Amino acid sequence: MHQSKLWIPTLREVPSDAEAKSHSLMLRAGLIRQLAAGIYSFLPLGWRVLNKVSQIVREEMDRIETQEVLMPAMQPAELWQESGRYAVYGDELIRFRDRHDREFALGPTHEEVITTLIRNEISSYRQLPISIYQIQTKYRDERRPRFGLLRGREFLMKDAYSFDASWEGLNETYWKMHGAYCRIFDRIGLNYRAVEADAGAIGGSGETHEFMALSDIGEDTIISCVECDYAANLEKAEFFQSQETATESDKSPASCYEKIHTPQTHTIEQLVQSLDRTANSFIKTLIFVADGEPIAVLVRGDHEVNETKVKNYLGAEEIELANADIVLNVTGAPFGFAGPLNLAIPLLVDREVAGMTSGIVGANEVDYHLINIQPSRDFSIEEIGDFRNANQDDVCPRCKGNLHFSRGIEIGHVFKLGTKYSEKLGGKFLDQTGKEQWMIMGCYGIGVSRLLSAIVEQSNDLNGIIWPRSIAPYQVHLIPVSVKDSTQMELSELLYSRLISAGIEVLIDDRDERPGVKFKDADLIGIPIQVIVGKLAGDGFVEFKERRTPADKIAISIEDAFLRITELINS
Amino acid sequence: MHQSKLWIPTLREVPSDAEAKSHSLMLRAGLIRQLAAGIYSFLPLGWRVLNKVSQIVREEMDRIETQEVLMPAMQPAELWQESGRYAVYGDELIRFRDRHDREFALGPTHEEVITTLIRNEISSYRQLPISIYQIQTKYRDERRPRFGLLRGREFLMKDAYSFDASWEGLNETYWKMHGAYCRIFDRIGLNYRAVEADAGAIGGSGETHEFMALSDIGEDTIISCVECDYAANLEKAEFFQSQETATESDKSPASCYEKIHTPQTHTIEQLVQSLDRTANSFIKTLIFVADGEPIAVLVRGDHEVNETKVKNYLGAEEIELANADIVLNVTGAPFGFAGPLNLAIPLLVDREVAGMTSGIVGANEVDYHLINIQPSRDFSIEEIGDFRNANQDDVCPRCKGNLHFSRGIEIGHVFKLGTKYSEKLGGKFLDQTGKEQWMIMGCYGIGVSRLLSAIVEQSNDLNGIIWPRSIAPYQVHLIPVSVKDSTQMELSELLYSRLISAGIEVLIDDRDERPGVKFKDADLIGIPIQVIVGKLAGDGFVEFKERRTPADKIAISIEDAFLRITELINS
Repeated sequence: MHQSKLWIPTLREVPSDAEAKSHSLMLRAGLIRQLAAGIYSFLPLGWRVLNKVSQIVREEMDRIETQEVLMPAMQPAELWQESGRYAVYGDELIRFRDRHDREFALGPTHEEVITTLIRNEISSYRQLPISIYQIQTKYRDERRPRFGLLRGREFLMKDAYSFDASWEGLNETYWKMHGAYCRIFDRIGLNYRAVEADAGAIGGSGETHEFMALSDIGEDTIISCVECDYAANLEKAEFFQSQETATESDKSPASCYEKIHTPQTHTIEQLVQSLDRTANSFIKTLIFVADGEPIAVLVRGDHEVNETKVKNYLGAEEIELANADIVLNVTGAPFGFAGPLNLAIPLLVDREVAGMTSGIVGANEVDYHLINIQPSRDFSIEEIGDFRNANQDDVCPRCKGNLHFSRGIEIGHVFKLGTKYSEKLGGKFLDQTGKEQWMIMGCYGIGVSRLLSAIVEQSNDLNGIIWPRSIAPYQVHLIPVSVKDSTQMELSELLYSRLISAGIEVLIDDRDERPGVKFKDADLIGIPIQVIVGKLAGDGFVEFKERRTPADKIAISIEDAFLRITELINS
Repeated sequence: MHQSKLWIPTLREVPSDAEAKSHSLMLRAGLIRQLAAGIYSFLPLGWRVLNKVSQIVREEMDRIETQEVLMPAMQPAELWQESGRYAVYGDELIRFRDRHDREFALGPTHEEVITTLIRNEISSYRQLPISIYQIQTKYRDERRPRFGLLRGREFLMKDAYSFDASWEGLNETYWKMHGAYCRIFDRIGLNYRAVEADAGAIGGSGETHEFMALSDIGEDTIISCVECDYAANLEKAEFFQSQETATESDKSPASCYEKIHTPQTHTIEQLVQSLDRTANSFIKTLIFVADGEPIAVLVRGDHEVNETKVKNYLGAEEIELANADIVLNVTGAPFGFAGPLNLAIPLLVDREVAGMTSGIVGANEVDYHLINIQPSRDFSIEEIGDFRNANQDDVCPRCKGNLHFSRGIEIGHVFKLGTKYSEKLGGKFLDQTGKEQWMIMGCYGIGVSRLLSAIVEQSNDLNGIIWPRSIAPYQVHLIPVSVKDSTQMELSELLYSRLISAGIEVLIDDRDERPGVKFKDADLIGIPIQVIVGKLAGDGFVEFKERRTPADKIAISIEDAFLRITELINS
């Protein structure tokens, strides 16, 4: 491709609205443009990369015999009512009415559509298992679209759905899909981890993994063991629970508790300072509302409540921190002074709190705390469990190895749905004995457009993007320094033709621009191999440079350049 | 591909809701399934064909250096307000509000988006011309979705937009695109015509062609000359206007007009019968409302008013037949008795009416007509023009050849937009003299998913679809008659491997089904080459059949079958 004919509107300045490095680079390299918050156009270079990523996804889906289809984005509301999600999906679901006043949703996902499709066409175990996928535009009206393609409102997704006749079958399909995802992300050149994730209230066996591209701007926290292969996201992460739950708090047999005056101390940090005790001497009492009912969760002062663990323990649909009114109503005191004594609501006590010999708690009275509180003695422990996040002091639940904390961008997700949707939408089949059974489903997603951001976030330097070879918009960037120099241009066009004939994708910068502009654009765009045709052209020599190792620029003959390129690309 | 692993839910019965042959066949062959009126899922085979069609479109767009992008379907209403189309687009435009109550439209087309994108990025004549395309999902809330993919509410379209610095440039781009469209439809194997179409009130040079797949179920009428290459749709079609506008009506100098009693005769047909005169003795007076104002159009009794010609003559935005109330109000009589005398509204007189020496008109009084009416003498002729449809008696406006009438499905459209959108949306550039100019635009559409219906409509027989080779879901259908016969299966798998190695797409029917079921499915699905491996397998022979010529089934050796297939596919 001749660059003079390709629309690549590069930008010199960093766009003011770009919060993430990838967002800024993708705007600057002329890959995307924003139309509205969270809604982007893919320009020619961006489209090429998107297409290459899609192609890799497609190849790996086809390899495991998942069949490609294309389902509509316009979905009748009835389907969502049937599954029960119309009421609970909230503002993220885009809804509208057609000219006949019938309600529709713009699909954020396709469980309803695929389950309906399959239930109408498949009725026997002989037709199972079947796996279906599509690469299709999804709509989610995010509260806070940001980071360019990372959290958008209209985006490209690969979503797959499997239907099995048995749980063993689903398990096999699930791990096949898991393997395909690993191959996809490997081929794309991402640094990622597959981590255990929380299945929420979806039921079924609930096994689920998230694929996380490691990145500081990731919205998820990943915990991984430095010794074994255990990895989970923060919501799900477990840790080794020692039997003796020793604490730093006072080990002597506690005397009766006492009320102390603690004016203006609403937080553990303030208490630590004013009372000169370590954070783990305290017991935090947090009031939540779970499905409309207030509850209290007790964790040690140096720990954080894990809402997902609480929610799963309760089997609740929704959980959120109580507001000031509810806290006042339930505890009799404002925020910061809640404690477990005499609360008329369920107490969920974290295992490590239960093991404390003494702790400091709120007095349910403004400006007062209680010290020398002994769990069991001073408040009853009926509901005990793991209700907190893992932290840096914890060790691996499997091997007691140290845990490593990092941030990740969710790029993929595999999920054992079980019979949740088949039961709601009537997805039945006749088994070998002629008995009706619910189909056992799985669902599997990859954020195709989001992958571009994840890659750029991982693969860049001060000068721009560094595309992995498998998804680069072009494989070679050929840069004649001056288009007015006929020797340079002839040599460039010669090499261009040879490379094109060898089936290599080449972008030749035939623009009449200053060399500085060309080099800057080339680095920004990030094509992995650069060949600069300059002063040495008369001797048949060019400069060869790999984008990721710019310091290793070497002068070689055009013949060697050709060999080196074909070798690199075929390696 | 092994058919046992491919989801092709064929149907034996003709679906009751399928109005068109293509619709029925596409449902029966398991290509598509309806989700809601005008909204379809593409199943694996349907998706494969859709993808092949898209690929051909893509290749021909790339060949003429049109650059591929992907624009969003979610479009802010502000853009449509800026272009002025938000108010006029009507119910076909799907509208909704996001969580922040901002209005959006689901794009039925992308002039607004592309013009905004280009205006922000391109500012100089040096960056022009540029042509952009995408293959993307469009939304139009049709009043009457029907015929399967032919008139849907969510459909796949290729839309292209060009920006030139001059009208000459646009003309060149336009004809390049026209050529690409011809190559696309040729490659797809369609029987089509490019016809002149009406540009409506869009302004600009307004040149526009529609590409019509010939088909009896087409919603458009096409007129083409049997001698020269003149072709137009009915709205646009001109015809040779003889200077002497001879009529069959009374040629003798007319006496004064007379009022006659014509009870219960509301139509020309009834008048022809009751008065025993030919239809061309009458003058029809039709009342329309053009942009809110009533007007009368006069055409000969055997002619039909062409609303598009009337609309263009008036420069009106909208025109529709007046309702009964308006007719009564304007003429003083109900439907069927309108006439030109003493009407206080503009009279648009068709050229052939103006040339009549005598005619019969409504009396503007219930149950009365006037005979011996002489145009000019009895009513004044101020507005004269061509206001009627061409018909079978007309001849070509270019060569006076006979005109042929046929029906067509609109599959593509090329349009010189001119500066309509660039003016409204601020699409300016600096020309060579540094002066600001409006960009000169063109737009070019192909209904990609609709093409599938058009092809199937043209290419089928009693047994099913007959896919043209270029877009068939697979190139060869290999059918072992019995999967339990190891000789047949071994020979089949041998041929399968050889064909696959030669890069040929083969579907092998390895299902344990009765031969009748397999043959019926194969004919229905319509893969162009069938190879049946049956009783002769022991001798290394197979039956070779082309789907379009089923009678020519021959027994040949497996070696000859291989040669014949590769020859056919490479031809």
